[in-house]
Amino acid sequence: MNSFPESLNNLIDEFSRFPGIGKKTAQRMAFYVLNSSTNLANDLSQAVLDLKSKIRFCEKCFGISEDTYCSICLDSKRDINIICVVENPADIYTFEKTSAFRGVYHVLGGVLSPLDGIGPDVLNIGSLLSRISSSNEVLIATNATIEGEATCLYLANLLEEKSVKVTRLARGLPIGGDLEFVDEATIMRAIEDRSEIQ
Amino acid sequence: MNSFPESLNNLIDEFSRFPGIGKKTAQRMAFYVLNSSTNLANDLSQAVLDLKSKIRFCEKCFGISEDTYCSICLDSKRDINIICVVENPADIYTFEKTSAFRGVYHVLGGVLSPLDGIGPDVLNIGSLLSRISSSNEVLIATNATIEGEATCLYLANLLEEKSVKVTRLARGLPIGGDLEFVDEATIMRAIEDRSEIQ
Repeated sequence: MNSFPESLNNLIDEFSRFPGIGKKTAQRMAFYVLNSSTNLANDLSQAVLDLKSKIRFCEKCFGISEDTYCSICLDSKRDINIICVVENPADIYTFEKTSAFRGVYHVLGGVLSPLDGIGPDVLNIGSLLSRISSSNEVLIATNATIEGEATCLYLANLLEEKSVKVTRLARGLPIGGDLEFVDEATIMRAIEDRSEIQ
Repeated sequence: MNSFPESLNNLIDEFSRFPGIGKKTAQRMAFYVLNSSTNLANDLSQAVLDLKSKIRFCEKCFGISEDTYCSICLDSKRDINIICVVENPADIYTFEKTSAFRGVYHVLGGVLSPLDGIGPDVLNIGSLLSRISSSNEVLIATNATIEGEATCLYLANLLEEKSVKVTRLARGLPIGGDLEFVDEATIMRAIEDRSEIQ
């Protein structure tokens, strides 16, 4: 007996598929399931199935929803003239937590990454273009990574043709950040985008 | 919409229960389920249920097994005269990976921890005592923690009455360990238990 029983190995493999979960953590998780009550296992198993069966993607913004349209798209108090473009549905919650944005969202479903075979046609770009009119502002809020920046520039080019106002999130020092620990690229952007004190 | 839909929240809560999985990781895992195929969700859900239905504890050693007795207890090539006492079923695999131990195991199911209400009667100690005879050697392999050491000493006392040979794992420098980074308690034990070079 040098290896685990098959059913244990199976669950370890399933847990290992998650991002950020290594073999050791997956093993600890599987043993945790093994050592806990059958209720926990049933609840977990059911929660996974429920999620897949109940949640779908909003047909307008591709955020997550339990209905055809998500609660943000259905909310009449939202300003539909400003559309925030994000990479993933989870990003919407990052913005919503701040309550600083009262517009609507559009989820790309990823970023351009030619090496991984992710081209413009894989992302929800066509649906974005058909949503906007010239009176809109599009706030591109992709991650500040190389792929995120490239996707941002690609979108900005496309949107320019539509003569729509395109903005993106400010780059600069993170609040609470110490100058000593901020990388050079951020410092450069913070100098370029410096603002006047009023 | 400041919070996730209920079914998403449920799954995040389920994942958060695992040891070492915080709210953020649980959230990332739940979104991973959401973004992946229904097959992955079904497989995960089924693997969790299978584990609980197929795996039980060996009636002799309390290790994990798919039958009444585990494959180690059933293996006639194993030396039943030396019993290695471990805290958890997972510990058995740590030993088995080395192939350095050819005896059998006994799982305590935890360690003595009066503050958590874990006394001797909660652990598989009675079944250990009824398994051994005076010709046995009992190798106590609890963790080198305070609770593990206390449990080890408690067992050693009990077993002394049975006039059985009681041993425990050597303490000393871990292989590959640099003296500079080894703690004082380990150094002290390594000096005490120093061995002659032959």
